[in-house]
Amino acid sequence: MKANNKPLILVTNDDGFDAKGIESLIEVSREFGEIVVIAPDISRSGMSHAITIKEPLRISRISENDNLTIYSTNGSPVDCIKLAINQVLPKLPDLILSGINHGSNSSISVIYSGTMGAVMEGCIYGIPSIGFSILDYDKNADFTASKIYARYIIRNVLNSGLNKGTCLNVNIPKGLSHELKGIKVCSQAKGMWKEEFDKRTDPHHCEYYWLTGSFINLEPENDATDEWALSNKYVSIVPTIVDFTDYNSVNLLKNLENDPSHL
Amino acid sequence: MKANNKPLILVTNDDGFDAKGIESLIEVSREFGEIVVIAPDISRSGMSHAITIKEPLRISRISENDNLTIYSTNGSPVDCIKLAINQVLPKLPDLILSGINHGSNSSISVIYSGTMGAVMEGCIYGIPSIGFSILDYDKNADFTASKIYARYIIRNVLNSGLNKGTCLNVNIPKGLSHELKGIKVCSQAKGMWKEEFDKRTDPHHCEYYWLTGSFINLEPENDATDEWALSNKYVSIVPTIVDFTDYNSVNLLKNLENDPSHL
Repeated sequence: MKANNKPLILVTNDDGFDAKGIESLIEVSREFGEIVVIAPDISRSGMSHAITIKEPLRISRISENDNLTIYSTNGSPVDCIKLAINQVLPKLPDLILSGINHGSNSSISVIYSGTMGAVMEGCIYGIPSIGFSILDYDKNADFTASKIYARYIIRNVLNSGLNKGTCLNVNIPKGLSHELKGIKVCSQAKGMWKEEFDKRTDPHHCEYYWLTGSFINLEPENDATDEWALSNKYVSIVPTIVDFTDYNSVNLLKNLENDPSHL
Repeated sequence: MKANNKPLILVTNDDGFDAKGIESLIEVSREFGEIVVIAPDISRSGMSHAITIKEPLRISRISENDNLTIYSTNGSPVDCIKLAINQVLPKLPDLILSGINHGSNSSISVIYSGTMGAVMEGCIYGIPSIGFSILDYDKNADFTASKIYARYIIRNVLNSGLNKGTCLNVNIPKGLSHELKGIKVCSQAKGMWKEEFDKRTDPHHCEYYWLTGSFINLEPENDATDEWALSNKYVSIVPTIVDFTDYNSVNLLKNLENDPSHL
């Protein structure tokens, strides 16, 4: 990799290094800097913030061109960030981008998301990090509008930065760019997945289950949420932190601080 | 399972159904209700909130006695909760317990933790959920003090409940019970892992990496944190939520809500 003054941008995803979504993100991010891609060798959706402890990790260089080097690994999206920062990159990146994910990571889906796992890992390192997802699971989804919005958001974050400890979860509705109404900065809607396991019997007469389910929005009337924005054809941006503390409950639970002799 | 008026308690972990830590948690929880254990068939540490989408899930009944039934699955800790609630249990459990994990889940480790992934999944379902971890990776760790504290906390939560949307991350220092000073209700300390990949070459001359590292506490002087409590021999309880929204940044970033014609 050449030394230059362009921003160093690390790109990853959870759909695999050869997914159409990451190709779109690489195309946009090349306008802004030198790009290193380190992404899973195969689709690793639903990996959340998982790390690989019990298996050895491997890195393969797929291609190297002017200002664009692509690696794949057998690790999770979070492993990709750790390997990039500690083994592959010559210095800390100026920006981490993840996606464009094929499928929504709004509301509670953020917690299951490998795309957002990588973004949060970047945030833990103090690096401005953005995850992009489109509400379209089709592997041939049309990313034309997504690229317009991604370009606008990347430009803004490179110019203005983000608060340390804050990363962005960007979700983009399906649709042509003239059908989208702009951007809303939102909260994560309260919601959950209602599982419907598909129970089957294999040829050896053993039962097995496929995880399926449908999303339930628990606050459909709240127009401050990402789900409201997306269902009204806005691109949602949720500023995201990795502090799980429920500060409101810290004082409420002080009664548990009993004298140990009373346990 | 018999119908009775005892609480129904679901127990899981990420170290596997036969770990010493879960045996200790089962021993304590049997004092309070009817127990169903659904835990991974092997150790699944570092799985975070991962779910299994591309592989079929299987459930094996290991044993069934009065008020204690044990199942194992090939899924992640979060899969265990989903399978339990949707396929195995006759009704929603009154309480979900996860652990006792062999190793700390304080500070940022909470985000990588399968133990706490299961707890947060229970919380998403609105069920009071508690994760327990001991600061001792030894598979033969002494859980005597942990059981005393777990008993006290379980009794309190069964009696008083938890706010909907709040779960508990309990970490217990290594030591005899008279060496521990009681409980502190804390915030999650700001911290990160500094990776040190162990790079090796396999017999086929290919390079591979093992993930290792050491924890860095970024606010060692803050006596409101779990790290401070633990290093001072207190049991730490961090009230935990699964809302990633950085509410302070929502207004700060409103300038991104540009007119779409200006993108």
